Amino acid sequence: MQPMNETTGARAVLDTLRHRGVEACFTNPGTSEMHFVSELGVQLDMRAVLCLFEGGATGAADGYGRMVDRPACTLLHLGPGLGNGVANLHNARRAGTPILNIVGDHATHHKVFDAPLESDIDALASTVSRWVRRTTSVGEAGRDAADAVAATGSVRNGTGSVATLILPADMGWGVGGRAAAVSPVSMPEPDRGRVEEVALLLRRHAPHVTVLLGGDLLKRRGREAASRLATATGARILAESSPARQERGAGIPEVERLVEVTAAEQLAGTRVLVLAGARAPVSFFASPRQPSSLVPLGTAVVELGATVAALQEVADVLAPGVNPVLVGLTRPGMPSGELTARKAAAVVGALLPEGAIVSDEAVTSGWWLAQETAHCPPHDWLTLTGGAIGQGMPVALGAAVACPDRPVLNLQADGSAMYTLQALWTQAREGLNVTTVIFNNSSYAILKMELERRGPSVNERSKKLLELPGLDFVSLARGMGVPAEKVATAEDLAQQLRRSLAEPGPSLIEAIVPAVASFRNRPTASSLDEIATDVGDEGLGTGPGV
Amino acid sequence: MQPMNETTGARAVLDTLRHRGVEACFTNPGTSEMHFVSELGVQLDMRAVLCLFEGGATGAADGYGRMVDRPACTLLHLGPGLGNGVANLHNARRAGTPILNIVGDHATHHKVFDAPLESDIDALASTVSRWVRRTTSVGEAGRDAADAVAATGSVRNGTGSVATLILPADMGWGVGGRAAAVSPVSMPEPDRGRVEEVALLLRRHAPHVTVLLGGDLLKRRGREAASRLATATGARILAESSPARQERGAGIPEVERLVEVTAAEQLAGTRVLVLAGARAPVSFFASPRQPSSLVPLGTAVVELGATVAALQEVADVLAPGVNPVLVGLTRPGMPSGELTARKAAAVVGALLPEGAIVSDEAVTSGWWLAQETAHCPPHDWLTLTGGAIGQGMPVALGAAVACPDRPVLNLQADGSAMYTLQALWTQAREGLNVTTVIFNNSSYAILKMELERRGPSVNERSKKLLELPGLDFVSLARGMGVPAEKVATAEDLAQQLRRSLAEPGPSLIEAIVPAVASFRNRPTASSLDEIATDVGDEGLGTGPGV
Repeated sequence: MQPMNETTGARAVLDTLRHRGVEACFTNPGTSEMHFVSELGVQLDMRAVLCLFEGGATGAADGYGRMVDRPACTLLHLGPGLGNGVANLHNARRAGTPILNIVGDHATHHKVFDAPLESDIDALASTVSRWVRRTTSVGEAGRDAADAVAATGSVRNGTGSVATLILPADMGWGVGGRAAAVSPVSMPEPDRGRVEEVALLLRRHAPHVTVLLGGDLLKRRGREAASRLATATGARILAESSPARQERGAGIPEVERLVEVTAAEQLAGTRVLVLAGARAPVSFFASPRQPSSLVPLGTAVVELGATVAALQEVADVLAPGVNPVLVGLTRPGMPSGELTARKAAAVVGALLPEGAIVSDEAVTSGWWLAQETAHCPPHDWLTLTGGAIGQGMPVALGAAVACPDRPVLNLQADGSAMYTLQALWTQAREGLNVTTVIFNNSSYAILKMELERRGPSVNERSKKLLELPGLDFVSLARGMGVPAEKVATAEDLAQQLRRSLAEPGPSLIEAIVPAVASFRNRPTASSLDEIATDVGDEGLGTGPGV
Repeated sequence: MQPMNETTGARAVLDTLRHRGVEACFTNPGTSEMHFVSELGVQLDMRAVLCLFEGGATGAADGYGRMVDRPACTLLHLGPGLGNGVANLHNARRAGTPILNIVGDHATHHKVFDAPLESDIDALASTVSRWVRRTTSVGEAGRDAADAVAATGSVRNGTGSVATLILPADMGWGVGGRAAAVSPVSMPEPDRGRVEEVALLLRRHAPHVTVLLGGDLLKRRGREAASRLATATGARILAESSPARQERGAGIPEVERLVEVTAAEQLAGTRVLVLAGARAPVSFFASPRQPSSLVPLGTAVVELGATVAALQEVADVLAPGVNPVLVGLTRPGMPSGELTARKAAAVVGALLPEGAIVSDEAVTSGWWLAQETAHCPPHDWLTLTGGAIGQGMPVALGAAVACPDRPVLNLQADGSAMYTLQALWTQAREGLNVTTVIFNNSSYAILKMELERRGPSVNERSKKLLELPGLDFVSLARGMGVPAEKVATAEDLAQQLRRSLAEPGPSLIEAIVPAVASFRNRPTASSLDEIATDVGDEGLGTGPGV
């Protein structure tokens, strides 16, 4: 006798996801996913969002997961669809974002025929997923989906995983599925031994201890615990180099980010490095005569773990009654004249609204952003985590779906924008409140600098290869239904940014800026006073403003 | 003692590729490839072409390899760069195109640190490559490159492979490399036993034999041999469903393509199916109540092999002195009035220039193209081989680099265009003679039809998910420096197509067409008289015209 509530496998998977609070599906489906799409249409409390390219879908799921602490799902079309999503799944994996991929496949009996779209999905999925399963029985489809949700480990930011469920077409269309219950994931407890060890180390060596915050600890509560510790003990606090999400700004403790080119200086004198949700820092790339590890020689490294509670317990031991040092509200002065990356950062700092979510993939043009916005009203800052460019626009899209009542600001380099520009179309279709600022410097500026580091022998032909002339982002944005304007002065950027932030729906501002000249111009400290300037930077405001 | 000609590993790889006639490198590089980029700049007889997304680079290498019978190389940035190129490598694998991927990786000593861009490149590469190797010694880099070129098996279209060489940064910058000689790949000999077997089968059963041509055999010489056989014996000749490249048109024998929805009819009465460079036909996707194989039950399948010489030998035995039947030059009449997909095909047929290379990813809007161009002046026709959409524009780009003196016409659906639209920028930068016609029907029309096949229960919400409103391809193209015009009538399409074909450099025509209504409207035979029409098709020309 069959139970009354048997459904198609596709329905069983969808119902299971809904039981666990999965509320958004970012997709570019194909024929093998049509039964799932059909069920999606009647599952009214699952928001289905079409992306015109799978890198947009996986990046959007990353942005969504960073903001809501539970997974979105993607629905992807066999190996090539998953392949197109690999780069942003790589970033999501590095971010610790919970994501559940549903990847359609040929019907089980069809696979042996090696049809044109046949490929090794399982091997492909394994390169970006902590958990991979292929559904082999309709009756188990719901259970597989439940296990997949559990495998995303979606308790908090920074500790989630990518899980991939491969769903052959016959498992989707077959009848006999049943939604499965999902057991809630429990919060891991802090490791008491580690808490005591770290407390002891701080007590003995505090001025020579650096606590490196990462993941969930870069949100408000983690920063507060760290700030209390710093005040009470004199320990240094730093943030990992590529945080998935930071809560920052006025009313929240400031934490300086570790920057590779200045890491030696930032970590000088550190005898004990405490990792709190962060990983031991390494250089992004190897260089012929430089060590890969950024940890000073002879420094002891201790892992406290990724839970906020652990750092809070250390703070409660060493800093009872001590209050965190909160950032006051100040903004940079409004600059004027021809735009530079430095001035654009000041404009952003002058206007960033309270509660904004910033998706930052501005690369070299963004070097000044962190400092110029450090004392703005409280906001979230999402960073490129895995180095696979093309993250910024889809992450902005996903964050806007997750938080429809908050303004989203996507600060975006030209080269990386061209990877996943299709996200603009989805922003327009869904009416999402995303303002995109493209820093158009007509080049892969960071690569030109990397090339020049190879020495004086570098030839003009190689340099020319890394230039990006002739891109008109206003025209590109309008072609996808997103209103857009081009600006070349600080005043015009300010005017357009004000207008755009005041209006609902997406818009794009193309900011024409000169390419940053050299790594030597990279600002190195969090203090506004010490910010380096670049060619053309006369006309900066005398801030603090507002 | 070290030999005088030691170089960096990167230089050794590049020099080896040049020795073997690899003349084009489609790339989007990163820091780990900068030594290679630096060497590229001084290697003046290697054309380095920047693509703004790796799917463009791999698709371009596919288009290039289909036209020149030797591999282009790609230069890609670690796992995410390769990941972005996976979908078009999948298509290239299905096309049998020789491609050599050079994928940069972290320096060997850096890998253990699990830096942000670290991922399992080897596993990823294995999903799309027949050959994968990681260089582990600078001294072997040249030899590795030589083996990689050999592994592409680049003798002829349709029998090549994707080979991937993973080159860690220290293998590129290290000194001690030496270019290696490459042994030429020899043409495989026809299998004499198979030739005799096929000749015997044809002699006994010819009216019930169908020869299915694929790969290299869809070029002129293969078609000629097949046509001689058909004339002499009465055997049926068909072309595989998704050919990588066809030489076709006036002066070349016509070969009807096998189409899945009409395969039963096309293969009716076939007792012996001879595979000549083709694979046994299967349905693209499985359906709940349909067999996967398109081979009629009880039909014997015999593989003749992928060499033209084998079929020629069969023809020499059975059709000595028989001439092939060549297509005469006729064009469809010029249609008028509001544009439909059917009329657009007729306009293309009326104007297609001699020697054109057509990159066809028009999907449903392209159903009428094959017939309307069958009797045009001789041209090449490149088809989507692996079902991973986003192939058409990069393949057009690569074909234009391979054949700078020939006009390239990219017939492109809107949905698939949005996958790899960045190819337009490279077409503009390189001044390539590509005319792109976008069939904008504002939907994933094929998916809407697939959805409707799921039965009457299909809901409006699911259907709406598959619509693509608001794309303005004129604006998108201009944003990348490609001149563009929008047309909505047959007359305007004709005018713009004439103009565009007469001018050098890229241009784009956005053709607004209604979505094809149903699979039932798909034309089923190669005869122009039997072409089905669709909604709005009044105003077709009365052709044949010039």
